[in-house]
Amino acid sequence: MAIDVYWGSGSPYAWRVLLALEYKRQPYTSHVLQFSKQEHKSPQMLALNPRGKVPVLKDKDYVCFESLAILYYLDLKYPEPPIFGRTAEEAGTIMRVICEYQAYIEPHVTTIANAVFAKGNLGAEEITKAMHAAASEARTIEGRLSKSDWVVGEAFSAVDMVIFPGIQLLRRALEKPEARDLASRFLPMEINYPALGRWLARVEALPGYERTFPPHWR
Amino acid sequence: MAIDVYWGSGSPYAWRVLLALEYKRQPYTSHVLQFSKQEHKSPQMLALNPRGKVPVLKDKDYVCFESLAILYYLDLKYPEPPIFGRTAEEAGTIMRVICEYQAYIEPHVTTIANAVFAKGNLGAEEITKAMHAAASEARTIEGRLSKSDWVVGEAFSAVDMVIFPGIQLLRRALEKPEARDLASRFLPMEINYPALGRWLARVEALPGYERTFPPHWR
Repeated sequence: MAIDVYWGSGSPYAWRVLLALEYKRQPYTSHVLQFSKQEHKSPQMLALNPRGKVPVLKDKDYVCFESLAILYYLDLKYPEPPIFGRTAEEAGTIMRVICEYQAYIEPHVTTIANAVFAKGNLGAEEITKAMHAAASEARTIEGRLSKSDWVVGEAFSAVDMVIFPGIQLLRRALEKPEARDLASRFLPMEINYPALGRWLARVEALPGYERTFPPHWR
Repeated sequence: MAIDVYWGSGSPYAWRVLLALEYKRQPYTSHVLQFSKQEHKSPQMLALNPRGKVPVLKDKDYVCFESLAILYYLDLKYPEPPIFGRTAEEAGTIMRVICEYQAYIEPHVTTIANAVFAKGNLGAEEITKAMHAAASEARTIEGRLSKSDWVVGEAFSAVDMVIFPGIQLLRRALEKPEARDLASRFLPMEINYPALGRWLARVEALPGYERTFPPHWR
């Protein structure tokens, strides 16, 4: 197969790329690297991405990394079905909401997930602030999803692919017993964020979804 | 004119959009907002972008914000000359280097610029670390520019538009007398980063550049 994808279980960035490949029904060879064995920092991987980060996509001789760049490349190379909309306006809005997610939500999700999984002090003011900000931004996405099946436009798109793994990671972190106090403004999603909850289920029902699910989360 | 651009003097994000419009020779109506008067938070501006941030682009009825999303929209709407390359591979690499800039350089440039302009403690460990990281990443860009006139490919592109205002901001901060110690690993650019210095001059020589220059920097 022409496309090789190097990824790691649980990386929200890598998950985006797998969702795109499955949605576009592009065959690919999957290479799951073990973070615990530092396989993403092996000489072979550093030759592909000197930063030693995943995901990395190799399409014949062409190498790309940084998840958003891979999504963009895949959409230009394999245009159907599109993941950045069908008009310049829709594309601009998809990219705009991706940029907003990356600037205003993702850093907080990362802070919370790191604290939970590293068994940090979940009562620290920094964590409470991050949870407050993430919950408030999630409210905006909830508003979008209460009016539409997908975050932007009428179809699954790059913005769903970018946000979905982050929300899954946040949910997984907040479902840990030690995060119970922190989680109370977010979980249960069916009550606090019902449209977001239905959207998660909608993505989970897409063809090929099972192949994208982090193996070590099962 | 169909296109309205709302921007603020010295915002590196807004500067990107002006560079794109000039390069594409798209006529636009320029609205310079005064940050000191909080004009970017006026009810009219909040109606366009609830976050109260610039740049905001309005093209007839379509409103877009977040600088990268605007660049992407403009390239789809007004394709010639392209700013994301002419092939999927070139586009992927342009976007990849933009993502790398945003993840690994921009936060440090922001830290340094904020500290200098807010007259913070420039000897603080955090600032020294940011300078070290920015200087090291700038070395990678210097390497690219020592082999080519532009950061990616054979033409001025979105990646030049994204990085250029950040480097200008960094240079302006480091040229302040109080930043002299901090600046010693970066300035003078002609000696420490000669290819980067020539690239700045190349961008400054582009048609319409003068219209993009921050008025309060003169």
